[in-house]
Order: sequence, then structure tokens, then C-alpha cells
Amino acid sequence: MHKVSIGRKILSANEEYALQNSQFLNERKKLCLNMISSPGSGKTTILTRTINELKGEIKIGVIEGDIQTDLDAGRIRATEAPVVQINTEGACHLSAVQVSGALEKLPIGVLDLIFIENVGNLVCPSAFELGEAGKIVVLSVAEGDDKPVKYPAIFAKSKALLINKIDLLEAVGQVDFCLERAKADARKLNKDIEIFPVSAKTGEGMTDWYDWLKGKVNNLR
Amino acid sequence: MHKVSIGRKILSANEEYALQNSQFLNERKKLCLNMISSPGSGKTTILTRTINELKGEIKIGVIEGDIQTDLDAGRIRATEAPVVQINTEGACHLSAVQVSGALEKLPIGVLDLIFIENVGNLVCPSAFELGEAGKIVVLSVAEGDDKPVKYPAIFAKSKALLINKIDLLEAVGQVDFCLERAKADARKLNKDIEIFPVSAKTGEGMTDWYDWLKGKVNNLR
Repeated sequence: MHKVSIGRKILSANEEYALQNSQFLNERKKLCLNMISSPGSGKTTILTRTINELKGEIKIGVIEGDIQTDLDAGRIRATEAPVVQINTEGACHLSAVQVSGALEKLPIGVLDLIFIENVGNLVCPSAFELGEAGKIVVLSVAEGDDKPVKYPAIFAKSKALLINKIDLLEAVGQVDFCLERAKADARKLNKDIEIFPVSAKTGEGMTDWYDWLKGKVNNLR
Repeated sequence: MHKVSIGRKILSANEEYALQNSQFLNERKKLCLNMISSPGSGKTTILTRTINELKGEIKIGVIEGDIQTDLDAGRIRATEAPVVQINTEGACHLSAVQVSGALEKLPIGVLDLIFIENVGNLVCPSAFELGEAGKIVVLSVAEGDDKPVKYPAIFAKSKALLINKIDLLEAVGQVDFCLERAKADARKLNKDIEIFPVSAKTGEGMTDWYDWLKGKVNNLR
């Protein structure tokens, strides 16, 4: 019982900061999306391609969460998008107070959309609200089609699912991934989830994702 | 400061159970390995192939950790190896007390080697000792070669690294993974780490892994 009550206290302190972040973003009519996946599902590649393709239409900033290194922030910086790095120094997820500090460092006035790239982890980040308008979960086809069933929380909570690396699907027999099974299992957990099968590497399927983002941003304008 | 001291207390309670598990295993001369990776790196496929290939030489049992479902335990059961399922119900790692309960349910007397398949998570499980003789980290080439640098803790602590899905390397240009970079970065963190590039699907490279396991088991006999 003692352990449970500690968990609750930490979560609700985090939720207070998340609420502040949410109010800060809503007052300024900025869209904020929290991107969550296992390590190596392709979050950074999705972001760099999205930023480059939507230049001139949507001004994007990024809060980059990593345990260590600023490798991903460097990749974002190469697109010339504003980026703030958070190093969690071992922690397995971003917290709302960290995001609060990062939001202050971004040139928020000129941005339409802020992506938070969370620490690579399909489990823990789903339990920590950051003040985002929605979570985006990324699943690479190389990870297998059983992930929605095995790691349901993040699929249940996300606004959209990007099924990435579909270019690998075509390498016949090399990857065991049934797109229809993954989609059906995700929709059983979350009937409203938007699903985009994409290859951030080749660009396949990305247009639908861009259109969805543009729709969300235009709703706030 | 308060938060830090709570973290320490939980870890040391876990470490007490880990010590008990370690003594239980050592007294019986059983090898126990704790397998850790991101979701979908191929832990279960590595285990099923290893169990099947080593039948008659090494008797293997499995403790199967999952957040939900017994899909992986079902795959192990199909090999006829003894398996005990632990469902963490949302928790992001196995704890030593859970493993203690599972060890009691395995037919420990007839086993040579117990694999613990941890929850799919490259971050949290590395911080929780379970009483194992060693950790085994699995990295799939589809995840990218920057993972040792970005998630250093588990690479620093593991006895062996299996670089899995090397069959995907051959799909030219489809996966960005430099085997030499991943190996060099892992060895910078851990000069003694054994590295096995394998495909658990095709069997490529698995013989060296089997030989390493046989050596470890024979050392205890």
C-alpha cells in the first residue's frame, strides 16, 4: 500500500505541471504532440522528414528527450527547426516539469506545432502526461505485429499510430508483420486511433500524415 | 532529495531478493541469464531456436516476463521447455521477488540453464538485479547502430550482446546499421562484452552463441 501511494503522489505532481503546460499551449493556440515508441522505431527520421516537407506551411519546433547524447537533437538542428534538448540522465521517460523548462526556451510565438520526442520506451512514457494535445505512437514493422496486444497502454491512449518502415515489408519473408492484424488490434484498444502506414525513409504514405497534421494545426488557427 | 532516498529504498529491497535468488541458483549450480531488449528485438525467437537446437545437450527453462498476455510463454511452451509466466500488469521491468516466486514453480532440479525474458524495455530492466549470473542484451539491426551510445547502461552491464536480424542487413539500403560501429561503441562501454551477430530466424551466427552458452553451463557442472 505504501508503494502505491508514493506512485500516486509523483504522478499527481507531474499532472499539475502537465496542466500548466497544457494551459500555456492552449492560450497561445499551439499544437503539441508527444511522440512515443521503442528505441529505433524511427521517431527522429519521421520528424526530420515532416519538418522538411512542411516547411513554408507549418512552423515546427522540437523538444528532444534522450537519456544521454544529443545525437537526435543534432539531426533535428540540421533541418533548421528550433530544438531544445532534455537529457534525462538515466530516467526512462520525460516529465512535465522538464517539458515546462524546455517550452520556455523555444521561440514559441513563431511556432505552430511543437513535437516532443520522448525517450525511446514503449512502456513508461505512456503513464506521464506532459501537457500535450495528443500522443503519437510509432511502431516499426521490424518489431512485429503483436506489439499492440503486448504493450496496450500507449496504443489505447494515442491519437495516431504511425506504422513505420513499411519499405521493409516488401522484402518478402524478411519481416513477420501483418499490417491488418496490427491495425485491427490497435483499433480494438482504441476505436478512434488514426493509423498511418509509412516509410519515413522513402516517404511512402507520409502525405496522409502531413494532411492530418495540417488539419489539426488549421483547427487552432 | 526525498525522491532520491525513496528510489534507493526500493532498489535495496529488490537487491535483497536478488541476493536470495542468486544464492538459490548458485547452491544448485544452475546458470541464470537475464535477457533484455526493446520490444520486438527478437528475444523469444532467440530463445525458441536456442532451446530447440540445444535439446539433448542443455536442459533450459524460461521465466517469461510480459506486461500483459502469455503470447511469448505460449511460443516457449511449444518447444516443450518448462516456462513460468509473470505478468507485470503495467510495470516496465521484472523484479527479484517476482523471479523468486517463478523459480519455485520451475522444475529446477532437472534444469541446467534458466533464461529470464524481461519485459521489452531497453531502459528500466537494467536497473533491477534479479539474481542472474549475467545479463544478455539483444539489439536488432532494424533499431539502428546508435543504440549503445544512446542507451549505454544495459550495454555497460551485459555479459553478451546479440545483434539480431542480421538477415535484414543484406536487404541493401533498407536498414541503416553499421555492424562495426555498433560493436565498437558497445566495447567502449564494456571491454569484456561478448558480441554475437545473429539471425535467430535463419540461424546464421547462432553456433557461436550456443558454444558460449555450453561453455558457461559446463563451467558449473
